[in-house]
Amino acid sequence: MNQDYIKPDNWSIIEEGFDVERVKSSESLFSIGNGAMGQRANFEEHYSGPTFQGSYVAGVYYPDKTRVGWWKNGYPEYFAKVLNAPNWIGINVYVNGEQLDLYKCKKVEDFRRELNMKEGWYERRFTATLQNDIIIKVVSKRFLSIDIDEVGAINYQVTPVNSDATIVLEPYLDAGIHNEDSNWDDKFWDTLDVRHEDNRAFITSRTEKTHFYVCTGMEVALFKNAVEIHLKQGVEKSSVKISFEYEMKVSKGETVAIQKLAGYTNSMNHDKYDLVTASKRAFDKASALGFDGLLSAQKDAWAKIWEMADITIEGDIQAQQGIRFNIMQLNHTYLGKDPRLNIGPKGFTGEKYGGSTYWDTEAYCIPFYMATKDQGVARNLLKYRYNHLERAIENAEKLGFSNGAALYPMVTMNGEECHNEWEITFEEIHRNGAIAFAIYNYHRYTGDYSYIPEMGLEVLIGIARFWHQRATYSAAKQKFVILGVTGPNEYENNINNNWYTNYIAKWCIDYTIENIKKIESEYTEDYDRVMDKVNLDWAEVEKWQEVADNMYFPYSEEHQIYLQQDGFLDKELVTVADLDPSQRPINQKWSWDRILRSPYIKQADTLQGFYFFEDHFSLEELKRHFDFYEPFTVHESSLSPCVHSIQAAKLDQMEQAYRFYLRTSRLDLDDYNKEVEEGLHITSMAGTWMSIVEGFGGMRVKNDTLSFEPKIPLEWDAYSFKVNFRHQILKVNVAQSGVTFELEGDKELMILVDGKEVTVSPNNMVSLDR
Amino acid sequence: MNQDYIKPDNWSIIEEGFDVERVKSSESLFSIGNGAMGQRANFEEHYSGPTFQGSYVAGVYYPDKTRVGWWKNGYPEYFAKVLNAPNWIGINVYVNGEQLDLYKCKKVEDFRRELNMKEGWYERRFTATLQNDIIIKVVSKRFLSIDIDEVGAINYQVTPVNSDATIVLEPYLDAGIHNEDSNWDDKFWDTLDVRHEDNRAFITSRTEKTHFYVCTGMEVALFKNAVEIHLKQGVEKSSVKISFEYEMKVSKGETVAIQKLAGYTNSMNHDKYDLVTASKRAFDKASALGFDGLLSAQKDAWAKIWEMADITIEGDIQAQQGIRFNIMQLNHTYLGKDPRLNIGPKGFTGEKYGGSTYWDTEAYCIPFYMATKDQGVARNLLKYRYNHLERAIENAEKLGFSNGAALYPMVTMNGEECHNEWEITFEEIHRNGAIAFAIYNYHRYTGDYSYIPEMGLEVLIGIARFWHQRATYSAAKQKFVILGVTGPNEYENNINNNWYTNYIAKWCIDYTIENIKKIESEYTEDYDRVMDKVNLDWAEVEKWQEVADNMYFPYSEEHQIYLQQDGFLDKELVTVADLDPSQRPINQKWSWDRILRSPYIKQADTLQGFYFFEDHFSLEELKRHFDFYEPFTVHESSLSPCVHSIQAAKLDQMEQAYRFYLRTSRLDLDDYNKEVEEGLHITSMAGTWMSIVEGFGGMRVKNDTLSFEPKIPLEWDAYSFKVNFRHQILKVNVAQSGVTFELEGDKELMILVDGKEVTVSPNNMVSLDR
Repeated sequence: MNQDYIKPDNWSIIEEGFDVERVKSSESLFSIGNGAMGQRANFEEHYSGPTFQGSYVAGVYYPDKTRVGWWKNGYPEYFAKVLNAPNWIGINVYVNGEQLDLYKCKKVEDFRRELNMKEGWYERRFTATLQNDIIIKVVSKRFLSIDIDEVGAINYQVTPVNSDATIVLEPYLDAGIHNEDSNWDDKFWDTLDVRHEDNRAFITSRTEKTHFYVCTGMEVALFKNAVEIHLKQGVEKSSVKISFEYEMKVSKGETVAIQKLAGYTNSMNHDKYDLVTASKRAFDKASALGFDGLLSAQKDAWAKIWEMADITIEGDIQAQQGIRFNIMQLNHTYLGKDPRLNIGPKGFTGEKYGGSTYWDTEAYCIPFYMATKDQGVARNLLKYRYNHLERAIENAEKLGFSNGAALYPMVTMNGEECHNEWEITFEEIHRNGAIAFAIYNYHRYTGDYSYIPEMGLEVLIGIARFWHQRATYSAAKQKFVILGVTGPNEYENNINNNWYTNYIAKWCIDYTIENIKKIESEYTEDYDRVMDKVNLDWAEVEKWQEVADNMYFPYSEEHQIYLQQDGFLDKELVTVADLDPSQRPINQKWSWDRILRSPYIKQADTLQGFYFFEDHFSLEELKRHFDFYEPFTVHESSLSPCVHSIQAAKLDQMEQAYRFYLRTSRLDLDDYNKEVEEGLHITSMAGTWMSIVEGFGGMRVKNDTLSFEPKIPLEWDAYSFKVNFRHQILKVNVAQSGVTFELEGDKELMILVDGKEVTVSPNNMVSLDR
Repeated sequence: MNQDYIKPDNWSIIEEGFDVERVKSSESLFSIGNGAMGQRANFEEHYSGPTFQGSYVAGVYYPDKTRVGWWKNGYPEYFAKVLNAPNWIGINVYVNGEQLDLYKCKKVEDFRRELNMKEGWYERRFTATLQNDIIIKVVSKRFLSIDIDEVGAINYQVTPVNSDATIVLEPYLDAGIHNEDSNWDDKFWDTLDVRHEDNRAFITSRTEKTHFYVCTGMEVALFKNAVEIHLKQGVEKSSVKISFEYEMKVSKGETVAIQKLAGYTNSMNHDKYDLVTASKRAFDKASALGFDGLLSAQKDAWAKIWEMADITIEGDIQAQQGIRFNIMQLNHTYLGKDPRLNIGPKGFTGEKYGGSTYWDTEAYCIPFYMATKDQGVARNLLKYRYNHLERAIENAEKLGFSNGAALYPMVTMNGEECHNEWEITFEEIHRNGAIAFAIYNYHRYTGDYSYIPEMGLEVLIGIARFWHQRATYSAAKQKFVILGVTGPNEYENNINNNWYTNYIAKWCIDYTIENIKKIESEYTEDYDRVMDKVNLDWAEVEKWQEVADNMYFPYSEEHQIYLQQDGFLDKELVTVADLDPSQRPINQKWSWDRILRSPYIKQADTLQGFYFFEDHFSLEELKRHFDFYEPFTVHESSLSPCVHSIQAAKLDQMEQAYRFYLRTSRLDLDDYNKEVEEGLHITSMAGTWMSIVEGFGGMRVKNDTLSFEPKIPLEWDAYSFKVNFRHQILKVNVAQSGVTFELEGDKELMILVDGKEVTVSPNNMVSLDR
């Protein structure tokens, strides 16, 4: 834990007191989003202190020219960067001619931020003493509308406290922004047009190279003591910026306010020549509701999200705040409306890592979206990969594969690989397995098989072909081996026979063949279409089968465990507990070679396999592997603690499970990894959800049946969650004393609780003792 | 082989005909140097076609800010770059107002370059038809004086062939140059002063950051039909450039010439405020001799170099030309006068790789310099590393080592590491072994032990400490292992138990302990001084010994060979012969992961160990290892074929040995690796020398005795070489029929020839039948 300034609260994230050191961290933590756009918690007014500005438009990216020290064949030319978009929040404030700038005020008091998770808004308030000794009070509330997702709304109020004052408010749009994570300090945007009409202004910009067109627009209204006023409007315009200027004499104690509706329309959703018109339509709709009407709709929209997705925890406010923060930020990032979008690892809260799509989506996010949204959302995420299949085949071709073998990219925006570290780009190939697993998982959970004959089978065949070609025969071992990979544990590079990779490779082939057979017999038309399209015959499939049947798995007879990779036992097996704490986190303290030859595990690797394929192993096997690998795991990836939490819970090691849960759920709030200022760890937040539902709740789907093995940490009085299972919603409440199940829907649901069948009827709570 | 335009010639490198496609390659091949400075074969007159400009001052470098895609802890901040220095060769030529530019002439005829290796000069001549139809003939000869090594001389002659003409000659100095290999397009030089006095001009510049001061100077004289003339001199000066302008009416057939003495003085050798004066002194000395006198001295100087270093080959002009080219370029790069200098992999012929010092020096260059120069030269190269010991200790500390462990850098200019690829920077640690081996080799060859008690012991202790700390104990193997390394074969990264690395690590420890013991008993004072300085006791030494005595070496019982690394036999062992030729060179055709998991060997790795430590293994063992590894070796490093050539010769596989010899000796002339335009492979040229002397000649030193096992390729009638062995010079001539030995010196020398003792007396040739 690196910081603890966030106030515990069940429904809000609250910061009190102004500290310049915390500004960038809070800009991340108080980020807002609505799936279509996102905004870091930057100040509306000018701020000359350290800040990391970020406004993002979903799906709009820039292919930044790759920067490397030493080029390797196969590196992509470009890295798709999440793009800082034109500033729509800006409101300059002048008080008796002095610009308000919290970095330069004599005093800042009563500074308070609140991100209200229940209602979906962010508010900041403070009382500042300017250099000219005027004291003003500011309250600014803003949100990104879920309903009209091209509009954000700001209500910015200023009250002179100790004197009358002349106040100038200057709302503006600014396309002259830059990207912190630019490789070459290139310009990312061209600004094409800056215009205004009455109280509205519009800037049309276009991204370089990708030619996304984005119109940034605003509409402003002014209020004095809550009554709308109309003032003479100054206009200042440059080639990249436009501002309106309103000057007011304000008496001591009076409040002036500006309401700014603003946001983006873009050429993914509109004709590029129609963006200003689209923007006007959005403002027409929004201003008809007004700030308060919009806010009221926002509360309703969030109420709906929480109705389905909320997890309650009683008796542990930190844990409660953590899980809600995670669920909220996931919903900021992706609402599942658009199959062209995906879930970036930092969502709309930072630029780092770039791209929008990692294997995180398949391995961590899909379970969350399956259970808390309509199943079409998860299907959209699967379809996204189907749409990128051709690119995945091209990607594999660049690495020397052929015959339709597909390697999905490590990082992408449009299907093209855009990562450039050879040990990851070329070798972290297990990502292909997660994509196949997500297909299996989707079918297992939803019962919807249709995706596979329609689309998934082609994806599976491409993946199976890749594994078949990637495995090579070792004459020495008389088995197929997979050499030179990086597993999920990125603290090992270019290793041989990573157990997880080999295991999922074998599984992918087996699963693909199983599906080909099923589709051959049950979906003849699809079978013929696909086999013809991909030019597959059974002779080829037999060769895959040979690889799957003779895959090598490194194993230690002594420890009775699968080895993370060949040679793992040659390491100096000093556990994390015996490591000098001053050496941690090792990724900040140690040179890379030292990390690589150490036994330390960045994130679940062998245990990730035990998580995906738990039915393949006994509880005793899980315990042996958990007891062996957990002590070497440093959890320096945000994706790690949740898997360990789930497994600790399964092993009834609840104290451990709880500790991992806290770490995953408050990773950003408490800034465990000392980097929250760069943005939030969005995808791992889905892992937090899993650690409650699958870990403590023990939820699984077995043979089309929901199954639970409910446990509860000692620290909690009770917790509850809901899951959408095949169009019915089951609410599970686990208390120390017992468990209840409630069902919304129209038919009975048979579930398993601790292995016993329980029938839950709609609107009829079932209580079981623990 | 990628090109074959160089004319075969015993003593010259000759190109005929002008081809813009070849300009950059020839700029490399016709490079000149004198150990203190170097110059690519750029044209004196303006050239607007593709060219790679390069003038270099020995020891003067720029620390270019590191550029990486993904930063790893421990990466150095800077990469020491060989620096393109101000242009001293420039002479603009105008004919009737039109600037001479071979890229724009109507016709270029009789274009010819010659690098005269015997006499040490470079000449270029051509007849050009300008756009204005004037035909001029140009002959330009230049060299870098060995005697006055701050001066280069150019004699540039112009003759109008078909008409009288007004000719303007504009000799200039230009500090406004740029570096092709700059990471960030930074400015590398600040120009401080531009001045002239009569026919001399001087530009004083300073490198950014490193603050090397360099004065670039010139002195010009004009001639008409070989008679010096004095003309009105125009002067043009900017902040970075100065030119003189001479206008002449020249009748058809008359020749005007400009003689330009120019070069560098720098603050490594002079007070920085004294550079212009030093430059004047150099010009005073040089102009007293005049161009012809200087040239004559140059011939004498080169005669002396060849007298000692020449290798003759009869009956194979390509082979003869190749070896002389190698010997000449080595002498261009390093003459051994200055212990602050070293042998850059591209010498003064390009920028690539940067730095000046790699393990190439110890592994490849020292034998050449020991045998062809005074032994003080090799001692200087060893002293260079002693001087960098503190930096090597700092380098190891950055990677987590302590207690005076030293890791010499992969690439350096001043002792600091400046390479930044983790798999090499942090893991190609075998370089440390080569540095210890060079100490051993120096003593073995010269018999001079004094370096070790005086300096080498401290180096050895730092290295032994490194290996002791770097090895870890494998409980599984019950041996010490070295995990996560890159061996000499850089087509394997982050491997475990690279046999070569483990072997040299063990040897380093053993050799260090052996020397500590010897010095303890024979050099008590040095012993006390060093042990005290490095704070070493015998308890620590015992721990080293434990590692050395229990080092693990991967071995295949089946093949009866040491394995290049753990798991090598798991690879698909398809030999190079069975590899589709369209796939080669694999480093240009394959992605990195594919290279890594292949069995292909970039350069001798296990066989490098067999080369260094041949006495430790039987001939049968060598044969088994050569037969196993050679078929997988792609020789995509310039340092590879020479070692294989030596071993093939030892195994009496002379056809193979000859093939490898040709490849190494004509690597650049024939541009095997399609990259000669970037510069020459200087350090591997010493390997070429070894492949004749140690390979064909079979020269070794055993128990203070020179030993030979002379062999000769079928293609050759005879070859000869000389070696300086302990202050006597032995000339060895090997013909198909027999071998002769001649000795210059004052005492008899007992040598071994094919294992039999032979005594050679001064000035008394010994002939032996073969």
